[in-house]
Amino acid sequence: MAAMVLDGRALAREMRDDLSLRVAAYVAQHYHTPTLGVIHVYGDRSAERYVRSLQISCNRVGMNFKYYLLHHTATQRELESAIYTFSADPNVDGIIIQMPLPIKYDSAAAVGQLDHRKDIDGVHPINVGLLNQNKPSLVPNTPAGGMLILERYGIELAGRDAVVIGRSAIVGGPMSTMLLNAEATVEICHRATRNLADKVRRADVVVTAAGKIGLVTGDMLKPGATVIDFGINVRPDNTICGDVDYASAFEVAGAITPVPGGTGPVTTMVLLNNVLKAAIATHVDIDDDMAQC
Amino acid sequence: MAAMVLDGRALAREMRDDLSLRVAAYVAQHYHTPTLGVIHVYGDRSAERYVRSLQISCNRVGMNFKYYLLHHTATQRELESAIYTFSADPNVDGIIIQMPLPIKYDSAAAVGQLDHRKDIDGVHPINVGLLNQNKPSLVPNTPAGGMLILERYGIELAGRDAVVIGRSAIVGGPMSTMLLNAEATVEICHRATRNLADKVRRADVVVTAAGKIGLVTGDMLKPGATVIDFGINVRPDNTICGDVDYASAFEVAGAITPVPGGTGPVTTMVLLNNVLKAAIATHVDIDDDMAQC
Repeated sequence: MAAMVLDGRALAREMRDDLSLRVAAYVAQHYHTPTLGVIHVYGDRSAERYVRSLQISCNRVGMNFKYYLLHHTATQRELESAIYTFSADPNVDGIIIQMPLPIKYDSAAAVGQLDHRKDIDGVHPINVGLLNQNKPSLVPNTPAGGMLILERYGIELAGRDAVVIGRSAIVGGPMSTMLLNAEATVEICHRATRNLADKVRRADVVVTAAGKIGLVTGDMLKPGATVIDFGINVRPDNTICGDVDYASAFEVAGAITPVPGGTGPVTTMVLLNNVLKAAIATHVDIDDDMAQC
Repeated sequence: MAAMVLDGRALAREMRDDLSLRVAAYVAQHYHTPTLGVIHVYGDRSAERYVRSLQISCNRVGMNFKYYLLHHTATQRELESAIYTFSADPNVDGIIIQMPLPIKYDSAAAVGQLDHRKDIDGVHPINVGLLNQNKPSLVPNTPAGGMLILERYGIELAGRDAVVIGRSAIVGGPMSTMLLNAEATVEICHRATRNLADKVRRADVVVTAAGKIGLVTGDMLKPGATVIDFGINVRPDNTICGDVDYASAFEVAGAITPVPGGTGPVTTMVLLNNVLKAAIATHVDIDDDMAQC
């Protein structure tokens, strides 16, 4: 039996329509347009493409877009100053530091300059900690998008066995935490894991975030399992694919995200939603402060 | 074949001797005695006993002990003020808020008043986040003690399958993170987990932090598995036992912590070690500040 396709594009469209309305309502109430700030040390083309797509998405939902592009010769001090400037800028509601930074930079020190209330990528330790403690916080967009897809398609998680392959700070790690917060039993696998196929075979929900083509194939899956594929890999012919061999997995899984068109489009919408969330939080604070004057 | 006993008392004795020497050296250099501050809303007797044992331990390693006992009628504001006072007190290096707080208090707001550099229990979101990101931080004492026992007895973790039962903020949760940081594959089980016995049976390392007598028995273990028992339960006859049925587990496991005498004594030593660590960090900061004057 073929799997149900977890259509990220359709979900993203709905989210965009909803977000546009809420942004318009916010602007009418606060006379301030929610603004995304992106800090980017110029590196590869794919990052540039991503930033441009963010710019277009901002425009479509009615948000401002502020961009700080640093030359690759920029010093650590210049990078930190760029982040500090956006953090202190009352017009900027949400900030993204385009990751990974070139290795010459100290990422942790850079993130240290980030106002955690504007950290819409959820990379500041305080947001990581709050997520870990299952408390309200700004959470990483990619796994939050994955969770939205699961919720939207009514995939049950409580008491189910989930395997997450990959433990990166912005995808695998927080996805494990979110699944755990949703009462799943979570097994976290990574480079050092032995007998990966056995572990995948026992799982009701399989999440890949490893960046490795063909990591999971249909014969490794429990029939009916749900597959969330966060991988974005470029094949030699320049086409995009995930970590999961879609053709074989499609025949065994119960539900699966395609790549492209699965988790990716939802990620951007979660990110923009976080900008609005941060804007609302700030404005409520300001209104409170005013009330105390 | 009987298991190797992971003797926490012996390890704690060694740690105490080592810590006493380092405290004496620190005092000689900085003319300041490392000081533990404990904030306690009076509740049950067992917490009182624990605080008293901390007081004795401080004394034995040459540290000061400062105690702020609040009556159970104390308001949230009084509690937060107590925490704030210790946070601002230059004589206090490390602070413990005796947990769990009575439910009428907002724990998160209370922890918010804690200077994270004095948070020797590792409960402040920023410390939770740093541990999660595998960066230096003050970490919860109980799981850190468990990791020390594993290290001390040469139990390999990289690539091994670990099961952690319990996901509390101060034991199960951070223990999972620490095992993951040590390259183990980690499965996190909890109340909603199904088929717990199957999961335990596959694990090379079994960690219990559930507070439930008889949760794991010998027949659930893989022969040769390492068992770390964080449970501290009181039997009807007032004796103490862990979550693991020691008698049956002892016959199957390769190595096991007894209760009492396993993880418990090490926890206190890790805690006192964290006080010294916090004192050193503060004093280095002060010295740096002085140098800039």
